[in-house]
Amino acid sequence: MPSTFLTGASVRAGCRAGTLTTPTPGLAPGFVQANLVMLPKDWAFDFLLFCQRNPKPCPLLDVTDAGSWEPTGVAKGADLRTDLPAFRVFENGECVAEPSDVRDFWRDDLVSFVIGCSFTFENALVERGIPVRHIEQNRNVPMYRTNIECQPAGRFSGPMVVSMRPLAPAQAFEASRICARFPLAHGSPVHFGDPETIGIRDIGKPDYGDPVDTRAGEVPVFWACGVTPQAALARAKPPFAITHKPGHMFVTDRKDTDLDAG
Amino acid sequence: MPSTFLTGASVRAGCRAGTLTTPTPGLAPGFVQANLVMLPKDWAFDFLLFCQRNPKPCPLLDVTDAGSWEPTGVAKGADLRTDLPAFRVFENGECVAEPSDVRDFWRDDLVSFVIGCSFTFENALVERGIPVRHIEQNRNVPMYRTNIECQPAGRFSGPMVVSMRPLAPAQAFEASRICARFPLAHGSPVHFGDPETIGIRDIGKPDYGDPVDTRAGEVPVFWACGVTPQAALARAKPPFAITHKPGHMFVTDRKDTDLDAG
Repeated sequence: MPSTFLTGASVRAGCRAGTLTTPTPGLAPGFVQANLVMLPKDWAFDFLLFCQRNPKPCPLLDVTDAGSWEPTGVAKGADLRTDLPAFRVFENGECVAEPSDVRDFWRDDLVSFVIGCSFTFENALVERGIPVRHIEQNRNVPMYRTNIECQPAGRFSGPMVVSMRPLAPAQAFEASRICARFPLAHGSPVHFGDPETIGIRDIGKPDYGDPVDTRAGEVPVFWACGVTPQAALARAKPPFAITHKPGHMFVTDRKDTDLDAG
Repeated sequence: MPSTFLTGASVRAGCRAGTLTTPTPGLAPGFVQANLVMLPKDWAFDFLLFCQRNPKPCPLLDVTDAGSWEPTGVAKGADLRTDLPAFRVFENGECVAEPSDVRDFWRDDLVSFVIGCSFTFENALVERGIPVRHIEQNRNVPMYRTNIECQPAGRFSGPMVVSMRPLAPAQAFEASRICARFPLAHGSPVHFGDPETIGIRDIGKPDYGDPVDTRAGEVPVFWACGVTPQAALARAKPPFAITHKPGHMFVTDRKDTDLDAG
């Protein structure tokens, strides 16, 4: 890791300068990384309500006023138009661009939603000796669409997307205890054991990310995942939206320990 | 207490039938009581954002879709237009009516916000032997405007309003521990000790409710209060709004223990 990217502010500065365009896992250790969704004001109430009703997959860290690109609650002085390594721009649900800067796409009616991310609880797990397989295997976390329907809100609805980490049962309970302390980072798991119970047919074929190895004595453990709001966006097809590019997160000034409600 | 009002459903039925028009404290013990705010859709985003940014004074239990009077998350089948003992109707910030039924005032663009209330944590305190003075003295809880500014959101801003209960210091810490488990009922206190620190000049003259006695060895302990959103409404003066009449709460099907986040 380049020593220049040790804090949220330095990551954001690198993005703003155009020198950092790569995924953010591992950067600014201890700083909270976040998902980003930007929507026009006339879609913002429905989306805010969707997050309010589905706090496990969509834990809100900050929401800007319409027209503001500064998420003052988590990163004063930041510019959400420039301070991520890469974005996705959507029109009517279709990805039309993957720029590293969205100033040219900015609209004065955009509301930005900064949503918690699993990196926060993964750090807490690793610190306490709970294995996180996709980190061990240097892969992207496996993610699956489930048959758990989110609470719909206005024009937004969709399945809960979950991420999976294989654990021994005793580790799963310990992980649940630890993650419950981080409600703004998806909280405790939503399921463990039989994947079919939640509509996952083949654990070896994730809908997003990479498969990981499950070892003898381990069961799959499933957490609500920040891809859920993206799935809801894909279904609702708002005329315009901007998100982070997967893995290319917004790095805040909040510390993981700040989110410890425990 | 009439034995017919032992559950949330029976309280709501009494309100709907017009036989219950009195304040709700003491009714349906163990069931979560709640503040109500109804606003037109074009004001709802700002208010939802205000609640999101100020979760201690404005903990959201449920938010309806525009045009729906049924808060499905906390009371399936309930009708928020009829199921409270009394309402207040506001036009441009001014109270124009105090009906016991708002069907005649209903608009299809109204969004209803069901907001947590201190009764939940007071029950938890009393159960654990922590004295709640205004209950002992059979008065309304004393409430004060403070110099703590809420995080503004769009057209909503205003001071945090707090409620006060005098406690011995050891009781205050125990109360803080207990209340921290109820983030949807205002959570842990926001201040204890010197009232002037938070802008309260005369503890004997509350801005709302009644003064209570502070005994030797006790200090005032202050909690974020559900009157805060009403103060924000009074300042913002939306063209139309409906709230519960103070003390005449919406009684849900949720149990106080359901709100215990542990």
